Amino acid sequence: MAVVGAVLVHGGAGRIEPGERAERVRGVARARDAAWAVLEAGGSALEAAVRAVELLEDDPLFNAGTGSALNRDGFVEMDAAVMDGEGRAFGAVAAVRDVKNPVRLALEVMRSEHVLLAGEGASRFARERGIPSHDPRALVTPRQLERWSRARREAAGEQSGTVGAVVYDGRGVAAATSTGGILDQRVGRVGDTPLPGAGTYAEAGLGAASVTGHGEYFARALAAYRAVAALRHMHPDAALREVLDDVERLGGRGGIILVDARGRLACHHTSPDMLVAWQGPGGRHEAADCSERETV
Amino acid sequence: MAVVGAVLVHGGAGRIEPGERAERVRGVARARDAAWAVLEAGGSALEAAVRAVELLEDDPLFNAGTGSALNRDGFVEMDAAVMDGEGRAFGAVAAVRDVKNPVRLALEVMRSEHVLLAGEGASRFARERGIPSHDPRALVTPRQLERWSRARREAAGEQSGTVGAVVYDGRGVAAATSTGGILDQRVGRVGDTPLPGAGTYAEAGLGAASVTGHGEYFARALAAYRAVAALRHMHPDAALREVLDDVERLGGRGGIILVDARGRLACHHTSPDMLVAWQGPGGRHEAADCSERETV
Repeated sequence: MAVVGAVLVHGGAGRIEPGERAERVRGVARARDAAWAVLEAGGSALEAAVRAVELLEDDPLFNAGTGSALNRDGFVEMDAAVMDGEGRAFGAVAAVRDVKNPVRLALEVMRSEHVLLAGEGASRFARERGIPSHDPRALVTPRQLERWSRARREAAGEQSGTVGAVVYDGRGVAAATSTGGILDQRVGRVGDTPLPGAGTYAEAGLGAASVTGHGEYFARALAAYRAVAALRHMHPDAALREVLDDVERLGGRGGIILVDARGRLACHHTSPDMLVAWQGPGGRHEAADCSERETV
Repeated sequence: MAVVGAVLVHGGAGRIEPGERAERVRGVARARDAAWAVLEAGGSALEAAVRAVELLEDDPLFNAGTGSALNRDGFVEMDAAVMDGEGRAFGAVAAVRDVKNPVRLALEVMRSEHVLLAGEGASRFARERGIPSHDPRALVTPRQLERWSRARREAAGEQSGTVGAVVYDGRGVAAATSTGGILDQRVGRVGDTPLPGAGTYAEAGLGAASVTGHGEYFARALAAYRAVAALRHMHPDAALREVLDDVERLGGRGGIILVDARGRLACHHTSPDMLVAWQGPGGRHEAADCSERETV
């Protein structure tokens, strides 16, 4: 049966090392395929978006879940959020250290009376919801440990990365985002990912957006909310350009993926690269740079 | 010298016990006066807003700083935020346990490269910035301890409260917000207060807003951002009504205070009461209900 739907997944903005490009593109393509399979099985936009992000969290190449960047103390603190356009339901966790899939925990928060749980409280909530404790050391990959050691030796510049997905299921829209934050970041630092309207937003009848980049600027610009709200009077591509221009005025760079309420997909970035994979009415594709997206 | 400026301070929405009304009104009036004194001394909107909120944090009658509501484990976890319209600079802390004035710490975060620090990381940042550790037990007042014990005995409904200030200094606008959260709340629960655009927002040329009420709904509605953004094409009163109607559609109630870029003040609430005090071109007044504000 033909599925009416659209999926757009990203694996982070920023400079991608040439040697990792092909494998990262395969990673986002796998996540896209998993989301599409959820839609084919009759699942919702929300379930599909969560599934895509979960796969990227489990993929050690991406800065979310396993393979997250290490903070100043050398351990992982993760943020994640989900938003369902239907009823503008939102759930997020911030600075969580001991779960394998923060996006699943964000979904549980969405199903509770809360929108955001932080740190130890988020971990305790996970246990209540049957999400087991995950050894924080298992989240640390040799690659991130090496990057962290190098960053501390050379005081190298920050490198951020976030994964996200936006999905249209023929009826509604949803977004999901997950991140390990910035390399060598201050303990307790929260970026835009778990903040409603900053890194993640979805609203029925309009669309859904997920953001990656320098979170502090995207948060102050309310980037995800404004990209979706602009769909009232703008083409998706124009909406993204306007918001990213504004973020750049504040001093920040990154990228946004977006789906509107008709399933049109859009992606734009001001960072050097932005890995994406999508499937929709126009076919399917994956690329290390979302400016190749024009074929959709 | 006559000051060109406007200050609007609130002490929380929700039902106010009759016996506490007069003393609470005096508390918000004192905070208003302190903010006005900052303007008279040539201080900025940002400094004035922080000063007002700091006084309310120190006043044990208000649910922020000393006198915060106790969480499920019987201790205090506080959120606070500041935003300066100039450059949309934002700083916030979430779930912080050991500082006397969270709004001062939020100001320090604003001056750093971050927008939000949570929990233990926020405490560590405070120490680096010379803000001393404050005994968490000193934040617990007999009144809040008694309310908490009663809530646990009777499974009483939640009662929230937040304090906030919006200020125009003749040039720019700023907002500050601080809260102890919801009585008996889950450890790690973060409401709208420290989320940019949710509980606190300011933008040069438009205005500044501070929110109180059931934070989960105000966060999903991006209430503070939308109230300020609506000033582009709406009167301040109409902007607040529109946003509060939308929050009510999601299921939440509360109140918003707002100042526009010309110093016009507005206040609206869907909760039973909302304590306010203001001073502006139209004079000064304080009241236990902001619907008495029409005299401005």
